[in-house]
Amino acid sequence: MKALEEKIAREGVVLPGNILKVGSFLNQQIDTSFLMEMGREVGRLYAGKNITKILTVEASGIAFAVAIGAAMQLPVVFAKKGDCNNVSGPVYSAKVHSYTHGNDNFISVPQNYLKSDDRVLIADDFLANGCALIGLCDIVKQSGAEVVGAAIEIEKGFQHGGDDLRAKGLRIESLAIVESMENGKVVFR
Amino acid sequence: MKALEEKIAREGVVLPGNILKVGSFLNQQIDTSFLMEMGREVGRLYAGKNITKILTVEASGIAFAVAIGAAMQLPVVFAKKGDCNNVSGPVYSAKVHSYTHGNDNFISVPQNYLKSDDRVLIADDFLANGCALIGLCDIVKQSGAEVVGAAIEIEKGFQHGGDDLRAKGLRIESLAIVESMENGKVVFR
Repeated sequence: MKALEEKIAREGVVLPGNILKVGSFLNQQIDTSFLMEMGREVGRLYAGKNITKILTVEASGIAFAVAIGAAMQLPVVFAKKGDCNNVSGPVYSAKVHSYTHGNDNFISVPQNYLKSDDRVLIADDFLANGCALIGLCDIVKQSGAEVVGAAIEIEKGFQHGGDDLRAKGLRIESLAIVESMENGKVVFR
Repeated sequence: MKALEEKIAREGVVLPGNILKVGSFLNQQIDTSFLMEMGREVGRLYAGKNITKILTVEASGIAFAVAIGAAMQLPVVFAKKGDCNNVSGPVYSAKVHSYTHGNDNFISVPQNYLKSDDRVLIADDFLANGCALIGLCDIVKQSGAEVVGAAIEIEKGFQHGGDDLRAKGLRIESLAIVESMENGKVVFR
C-alpha cells in the first residue's frame, strides 16, 4: 500500500535495536482516517473469501482489526494476554514469546467466540518473528475454524517470520514490508 | 442510547460481584457495525465542541475510541499501562486503581501526543468508580490541554464515580447507565 509506505518514510522513526517507531500515527496515536483507509484496503484484498470473523490480539492490534471489521461488516474478536478474572468459561489459549518485552505471554479467547464453521482473518499491526501470528493460528485451529489468511500493517521482512509462514501455505497480506532499516533509512520490499 | 440498552438487556450477562459481562458484543468480541453506530452517536453529542483529539486507555477502550475518531475524523491517543521499552522520551503518567484486577497500574502517554492547545474528549468502555477517568483527566491536565468531556459506553450508576465527577463539573455522556443489577436483572437509569 503505497500510501502507508510514504507515511512510514515521512513519519516513522528508526530506533536502536531494529525498532521502527510508528506510534505517532499507527500505534499509540492513531490517524483514524488513514486507519479506516487501511481497513478498506484489507477488505478489498480479501473480498469474496467468505470471511466471518476478524481475530487479533490486544492491545495494539485492536484498532486495525476494528477498521477491517468496519470495512467488511464483520465482528472482531481479540485475544487477551495473561489471566483475567472477568472472563468466565473455557478458553482456547496459546503461548507467545514477545521479543519487544522479552517475555512469554499466554493469549486466550473464550471458546464461544470462535465456532468450527468460522472463516477467520487474523489481523495485527506488526509481523516480525511471527510468534503472535503463530499463536493466533494455533487458537483458530483449536476451535476447528479455518484461517483464511492474515492482514498485517507493517511486516519486518528482514526477520523472516512472514516468509516462513508463507512457505507453509499461509496467505499473508502486509500493507508494507520493510526490507531493511540500516542507518535509520527504511527500505521497502 | 436506546439501542445499547436493548442490546445489553438481550445479550449482557450479570455475574457475581456486580460484573456485567458484555464481552460477546462490546468487549472481547465486538459487533463492529454497532460499535461504529455508537461512535456516530458520540459524534452527534459532542458536535460543535471543537474537539481535537480522542483519549482512551488500553486495551478495551481502544475500539470505542477508534469508532468515535472515525465518526469525528479525529486522531485517537491511548494511554499505555505499565512500562514499555519501545516508548521513548518523556511521558505524562497517572496511577490508576483497577477494581477488576485488584491492583494499581500506571498509565502513560508520550508528551508529544498531547499539546497544550488540544481539546480532548476522553473515551472508555466502562465507568464505575471513575478511577480510569480521573487518571486520564490528570494526564490531560499535566499537558495543559482541556478536557471537553467524556464518552462512556456503559456507566455503572450504582458505583457513583460518574455522579461524583459530574458534581465537579465534568461533562460525561454515557450511552447507557445501569442503575442496578439485582437478581441478574439490569435496570437502566
